[in-house]
Amino acid sequence: MPLVRIDLRRGKSAAYKKAISAGVYQALREIFGVPENDRFMVVTDRAEEDFLYEQSYLGIAHGADFVMLQITVSDTRSVEQKQALYARIVELLSKNPGIRPQDVMINLIDVGKENWSFGNGIAQYLV
Amino acid sequence: MPLVRIDLRRGKSAAYKKAISAGVYQALREIFGVPENDRFMVVTDRAEEDFLYEQSYLGIAHGADFVMLQITVSDTRSVEQKQALYARIVELLSKNPGIRPQDVMINLIDVGKENWSFGNGIAQYLV
Amino acid sequence: MPLVRIDLRRGKSAAYKKAISAGVYQALREIFGVPENDRFMVVTDRAEEDFLYEQSYLGIAHGADFVMLQITVSDTRSVEQKQALYARIVELLSKNPGIRPQDVMINLIDVGKENWSFGNGIAQYLV
Repeated sequence: MPLVRIDLRRGKSAAYKKAISAGVYQALREIFGVPENDRFMVVTDRAEEDFLYEQSYLGIAHGADFVMLQITVSDTRSVEQKQALYARIVELLSKNPGIRPQDVMINLIDVGKENWSFGNGIAQYLV
Repeated sequence: MPLVRIDLRRGKSAAYKKAISAGVYQALREIFGVPENDRFMVVTDRAEEDFLYEQSYLGIAHGADFVMLQITVSDTRSVEQKQALYARIVELLSKNPGIRPQDVMINLIDVGKENWSFGNGIAQYLV
Repeated sequence: MPLVRIDLRRGKSAAYKKAISAGVYQALREIFGVPENDRFMVVTDRAEEDFLYEQSYLGIAHGADFVMLQITVSDTRSVEQKQALYARIVELLSKNPGIRPQDVMINLIDVGKENWSFGNGIAQYLV
């Protein structure tokens, strides 16, 4: 069910972006237990002027590879699961495509399970 | 009040996209009872590499016309209303522009009525 | 912590867009008390056909400079703070870059403080 919006600086290859989405998907599978093929993501390349973040926030240095992940999910996960998800995403993206842990920002939006329809006009998680 | 984000594969005509937004608006009017002219939508054309979904999820086959609708609304609707909204959107989009029911994904984000300002710096739904 | 999505009609200069983001940041600093350098924003230029709003809603006239702000924030603000935020954003944007108060739409999405990671895979607001 997650709907993932990935924003990053323009200029990355398709393979680089594919590695990001693959890592996020794997972490969601492992930590949140999302079903196989539950992958719904959009990627947006941003010009520098349209992608604003500071070089340092809370003592964390953000560089040119900064990536912003906004993930809408059902509200069934614990705080511990969320913490584990952040750690796993960062671990996977540091391996491939090789993004520094400092450069991965994650925000979750929680919604009820009745807030999803994956086709046919049916709220699949209710039935 | 809904703020609607429409994502779809690049290459559709303006008329095709207009039909999608018109159908979503009509369904919101009929089922959620939103006021006339309460239409705030953004449409984003996506390259194939930037729009990720599986060809099948939960037994639902997704094709090239897959469209992802993320709708932020006030948290005043029942589960039954949400179910009716999904069904009505799919019905309208299957008529015009002719999207298969399987290809319409919908996600709702609920927010409080104090979370909206439509201009002038005022929270109109509170006054 | 806010994650701000700014949508506006294509054709504005980088300076114009920078003034919007600066005004939103200043208002968030003053009214919501967000920390210094807590600025995470994406700006999307929209073709007219992909940016849909009515010329009038609730008696508020929307023109070509209409800007849509969707701000994801932690759920720790009162209704009064939200109202003050709307008023201050509009005030600042009317000064620079000179947007009419009617043309500023704001929507807030509230999330828990555990829903944020700003790098290193850690939920910074929990620790």
